[in-house]
This record gives sequence, C-alpha cells and structure tokens, in this order.
Amino acid sequence: MTVPDINEERLWDRLIQLAEIDATPGGGVDRQALTDGEAEAWRLVIGWAAEAGLEASADRAANLFLTLPGRDRTLPPLMIGSHLDTQPTGGRFDGAFGVLAALEVATVIAGQGAAPERDLVVVAWMNEEGSRFAPGMMGSNVFAGLRPLEEIRAVVDTKGISAGAEIDRLLSAFPDLPVRDSGFALHAYVEPHIEQHVLLEQAGKAVGIVTAIQGKKTWEIVIAGEKGHAGTLAMNRRRDAVAAFSRISTALYTCVGGYDDVVKFTIGRVGVEPNAPSVVADAVRFRIDLRHPEMTALEACGELVQEICAREAAPCKVKVIPLVSTAPTPFDERLRDMLAAAAAARAIPAMPVLSYAGHDALQMAGVCPSAMIFIPCRDGISHSETEWAEPAHVAAGARVLLDVAAGIESFVR
Amino acid sequence: MTVPDINEERLWDRLIQLAEIDATPGGGVDRQALTDGEAEAWRLVIGWAAEAGLEASADRAANLFLTLPGRDRTLPPLMIGSHLDTQPTGGRFDGAFGVLAALEVATVIAGQGAAPERDLVVVAWMNEEGSRFAPGMMGSNVFAGLRPLEEIRAVVDTKGISAGAEIDRLLSAFPDLPVRDSGFALHAYVEPHIEQHVLLEQAGKAVGIVTAIQGKKTWEIVIAGEKGHAGTLAMNRRRDAVAAFSRISTALYTCVGGYDDVVKFTIGRVGVEPNAPSVVADAVRFRIDLRHPEMTALEACGELVQEICAREAAPCKVKVIPLVSTAPTPFDERLRDMLAAAAAARAIPAMPVLSYAGHDALQMAGVCPSAMIFIPCRDGISHSETEWAEPAHVAAGARVLLDVAAGIESFVR
Repeated sequence: MTVPDINEERLWDRLIQLAEIDATPGGGVDRQALTDGEAEAWRLVIGWAAEAGLEASADRAANLFLTLPGRDRTLPPLMIGSHLDTQPTGGRFDGAFGVLAALEVATVIAGQGAAPERDLVVVAWMNEEGSRFAPGMMGSNVFAGLRPLEEIRAVVDTKGISAGAEIDRLLSAFPDLPVRDSGFALHAYVEPHIEQHVLLEQAGKAVGIVTAIQGKKTWEIVIAGEKGHAGTLAMNRRRDAVAAFSRISTALYTCVGGYDDVVKFTIGRVGVEPNAPSVVADAVRFRIDLRHPEMTALEACGELVQEICAREAAPCKVKVIPLVSTAPTPFDERLRDMLAAAAAARAIPAMPVLSYAGHDALQMAGVCPSAMIFIPCRDGISHSETEWAEPAHVAAGARVLLDVAAGIESFVR
Repeated sequence: MTVPDINEERLWDRLIQLAEIDATPGGGVDRQALTDGEAEAWRLVIGWAAEAGLEASADRAANLFLTLPGRDRTLPPLMIGSHLDTQPTGGRFDGAFGVLAALEVATVIAGQGAAPERDLVVVAWMNEEGSRFAPGMMGSNVFAGLRPLEEIRAVVDTKGISAGAEIDRLLSAFPDLPVRDSGFALHAYVEPHIEQHVLLEQAGKAVGIVTAIQGKKTWEIVIAGEKGHAGTLAMNRRRDAVAAFSRISTALYTCVGGYDDVVKFTIGRVGVEPNAPSVVADAVRFRIDLRHPEMTALEACGELVQEICAREAAPCKVKVIPLVSTAPTPFDERLRDMLAAAAAARAIPAMPVLSYAGHDALQMAGVCPSAMIFIPCRDGISHSETEWAEPAHVAAGARVLLDVAAGIESFVR
C-alpha cells in the first residue's frame, strides 16, 4: 500500500462549513446536544460519509457511527472520532475537529481501494459537553456500560424536556438510519481533540500525545436559609443563603483553588431563590467542578470541600451532594508509542501532554486500549467563541491519526 | 360630642371578608395591583362606604377616595388610609388593615350625626407593592407629584400589559364613579399599617407611633471577567467573575452588613453568565439593597460599597450602578404627639418605632404633615401567607386613628 495523505483543504473547508450550523454572531457555535442544530450536523456528516462509501448507523443513545467496512467484519473495529455538540457559547473546533479528522482519515483509507482488515468506525458521541443535559459524556457512558440508558433518558433540561424525548426526536428525523446495539467490542479507540491548554503552543509543538486525563470531582451544594424582608429583618436574625454562599465560596476559592499549582477549581453555576432584589434569599444552589491529575490531591481537596461547606454555612443549613467522581485515567502506552512514532516519521513536532479536561476517551479507556491526539488551540482558549486552531495543526493531527489507523494491524492487544 | 368608639367586630369581619377576594390556598392573598381582584375589592369597599354615607371618587392614577363631607368643603381634607393590593404571596393585613381601619373611623364619625369641620377622605392608593408593575407606590407618587402619570402608565408587567391600560380597564368598570384631579391640598395624612417587624411584639405594645421611614439605596453591580474551561485554564490565569463576586460579597456582608445594629444589607438577586457548571463565568450581575434610618450612615455605607467593589474585583472589572436613593424621612412631630396622647388617653400600650419598609406615607410626608400608626404582626412576618395581626391590635390601631381624626381640628398647620 502506498503511503496515503489526507486532503488538508477538504478537512479545513468541512470544519468551517460545519461551524455554520448554529453559528453565533461572535464567531462561535451554540449547537447543544440533541437540538435541531445537531440533527443538521448529523445530516451534513452522514452525507460526506456516504460520498466516501461509509455506512451510517446509530445506537439507542444517539451515538452516530460511520463505518468503513473491513475485509473481516467479525473482527472488533478500530473506532476514531469525538463529538458534534458544543457549549452554549462554544467554538468551532472542540469536538468537531475530532469527528472531521476521523472522517477525513476514513475517507482517505476508503479511497485507497483495498478495504482494511477490520471495520473502521468514525464516531460522534451524544452530549459530550453536558451543558444542556448534565452531566456530559452521556453517549460514551452508555456505550461503555457506565450509566444505564434509562438513567440518561430521564435527565431533563432547564425547560423540563427530557434527554429521552430528544433522543427519540433525533432518531425519528433519520427514519432510514439503522439502529444497532450499543457497547459492541472494539479493537482500540483514538480521539483527536484540541488541547484546551497552552502547553503545546508554548512548546511550539503541532501534536500532543496524551498521557492521561486528570481526575474530576463535581458536587451540587444546596444552602437552605430563610426568606425575609430586606428592609425590616435585623441582620442578626437573618439566615441569608447568599451571605452563606459568599463565605463558603470565598473559603473554597482560597483553600481548594489555591491547593497547589495544578488544581482546577470552578464554581460555574449559581442559582438564588427567590432571586428578588428586596427579599433575603432562602436558597442558593451551586456547582463545584474540581480537577487534579493525582488521586491523593483530588481526595484531599474533596475533603476540604466537605469541611468548608459544613464550617461556613451556619446559621444556614447545607447539603453537599457528590455528582461525578472520576479517577485520573492513563492512556494505553503502546498506542501512545505508535502515535509518537507516526509523528516522528512525518517529522511533526510532538510531545507527551496531560489532558486537563474530560473527554469521551475517558470512558473508552475502560472498554479497549485508548489514546488521544491533541493539537494546540490559540492561547489555550476553548468553550469560547474565540476558540481557534491553525489549519497546519488540524492537518498534522489528522496525519498522525491516519498513519496509526492505516497501520493499526501492527497493534496486537 | 360624646366620645365615640369603633365597632371592633365589624372591622374584623370586614378584614376577613376582604381577604376572601383572591385568597390563596395557604391562607394568604394574591391580589396584585389593577387586577380583577382589586376591582372586586373596590366594589366591596365602595359598598360599605355608601352605607355610611361616604362619597366615592377616584383620580386618573386609580387612587380610590371615600369622602365624608365636612361642613366647610373649601378646607383641605384630612386623609387616612393605605392600599388594597398585595404581594403575589401576600397576607391579609398588609394594606387592607390601613384602608379598613380608616373606613371604620370614617363610618363611626359619620354615625355621630354632626358633620366634621373639614372633609375626611379614606384613601386606597394604587399599586403600593410594586410586584406586578415595578417600582411600587405608584399612586401616591403621582398624587404627590413625584412621578408623572404618563411615566406610570407606560410601565408594563411581565406579560407586556401596561399599567395605563389596566388603570383604564379598572376605571371603566366603575362608569358612575366621579374622576377628580389628583394632588389636591390636604390638611394632614395618617396611615395605619402592620409593623412588618418584631419590635412592638417583643416590647408587648399594641401600637407604634412611627418616628420615620428609614432611607434606602440600591445598586446594580456588574462584574466582568473572562470565560474559560473549568478543567484546563490555570487558576493564576483566570478572571473568574464568581470568584470576584465571592470576595466582594463577603467583604460587603462583613463591612456594610456589620456597620452597626440597625443597618440592613441584602444581596437578593444574583445572575451568573453563562451559568454552566464547567465554564469559568465571565459575568456576575447582582443587586444591593441597603437601608438605614440615618443619612450619614447611609452615605458612609454607600461609600463602602464603592470602595469594596473597586478593591476586591481585580483581576475582573466592576461597574457600580446606583439605582434608588431615598433619604430617611421623619414624620410630623406634632401629629406623632397627638397619636401618643390618644393612645395614652385610651390606656393603649404604645411606643415610638422606626419604619424599616417604605410606605405611601413616605410620599405624603412631602405634601402635608404626615404620620403612621403601626400595630404588631406575629413574628414580624409579612409578604407571606402566614401574616397575622391580633384582633385586639387591629382594634387598638383603629381607636388611636379615630381619636386623632375626631380631634384633628386641634391640629393647626
């Protein structure tokens, strides 16, 4: 087989074309999971896949699969891809780069004429971002058997619409699309993604070979106070939920946010009730997002969260509800070696990097040998309309994926 | 003239009967301004007034007047009363007590046979609460010449219905009701109201002679940061608007909320953008509600607000936007002396109290000598379905008003 190459311009043009679906005025994308926009994105991607001779299918979790059939269809496939949904003020590359790089790779291999030994499956996972239906990575969680489909279906958005109803609506928009069982056996999984950090950019590398995903813990904190009249209730008789939130969040930002140089601590969602200017609030609900690459530090910070909430809440009451708890996850060493060798063979500057964000590959690492390819994004900015990746880096990431996908038979589990 | 007395049972029965209009399942009232319920309340009260020989009229701001004609109709009238509208989950006494106590007083004086020297006007002001059309005290503001009628009429509720259209609808439901000019000259104004605080209850007093209404300042604070990914952006590179809010609000609660024993400091409304669990927030908007009975303290606290916001915002930016600024308003000393003397003569336990909430009397204090009579409400609770006033306190408040109204000719401006 001659060494194939990706079509840089086609890949870039498709990225820009996909970003037109639910484009925001500020140059970003607001294409949240299971919306009309995501259905439109499916239609576009399925069309491109069909041109290349790939077979489209989906599972009951609305994960989309685009399959290049192999010579022996009983062998577990190689899966490559990412997700098509975005944050409410998301960018053009987060998720989309991984799906379209994988589609480009499958298109190039399909164009070689000779079918690969095993199926090559391009995947677009359902609801990676978790902004409309929380928490995210729903599709890969169902595929990996980590969350039951029924639990995912029951989650509702802020308008009270369930993920289940929206999955049904999306699938019914594609009546000819075969629906297959989820969780089929895989040979390996490789996900390309933007780095969402500055390490590659600062080191002048075009590609990062991801060593591991940092661990994550999230909580919902519910502070319960008592309503009162802002003009009459004496300060020392108040149980003001906003005042308690102020004390708790200040202590959390200081103690947990300042734990060490690599911890990431965020309070991104806050809701106040009744949220009226002249009423002392009787409830504040907020979310904590905590990340760390080391298990011991993650657990120590988790204990600080418990302690600080309990200590600073009085005279209000507080409930600390754990949501997500994900241990730091290393990626497959032999796949990482293959990715590094592929980059070296093409003279693409590469280095090992940690992933600070969660990805669908986190779930897949429990299913089959898994790895990730990062490319730089400008100033490390993502989840933002100003998110940007250089065309040269997009091409470099796709090339490394192509060489590993084309040579995957040298990878024996 | 023999010393008259109020009819305790009639007054109480009418309070309970009025509370049946738009009663809530929880024992409260949801009778917001300019609704069908308020029209029904007008009809009931106008009927009772007609039985006593009072003349009903209104002005273009939908303030309702029930007039007992005096012997010399060229003299400026004594006005007494309050309001008939409630909060969405309001109680049975806030506003209603003042109107019905005033109606009881006018009914008793009318029943004496001899007309008083000057007109006695029972008033029900339009939209004191400001929950449907904000801000409140619309009717008294128009009467006092503090806000033009056209400005009030242009205010819309959450359904887009204007106060002007609803005023017209209310007045057209009473086609025989004379409409008179607003802002006519007054001899004095006295408003009975529940205290909405615990001071009378704790001191075991049946009546409070209100010394002043505390001053109020409100602000909208806008914190501008920068969006970022919760899992990747290093803590020392963040401009997290929630972190800045935490620092600012903690310092405000400590320094302004702890300024002295009488200050009232509230952050009741907080909005976070984009308010997603895994996105570092780029904006927090919140409201400050500050009250104090002394001008110097109010101004000192206002300066603290500015200083703290400016000091604690970095690395975010902050805008401090002043909204309302109302100076503390003292009530007429001689009227207060008359009220205290009336209570003493009836052996009704009374004491001077400050009003922590705003009332229509705030506007009237700029028009004519004005005063307020408070009665206790259980646990200081109001703006709540559980609001409660004891029948004995209702009667005591009405008796003090009666004696001052009957003896008003001794009050020379």
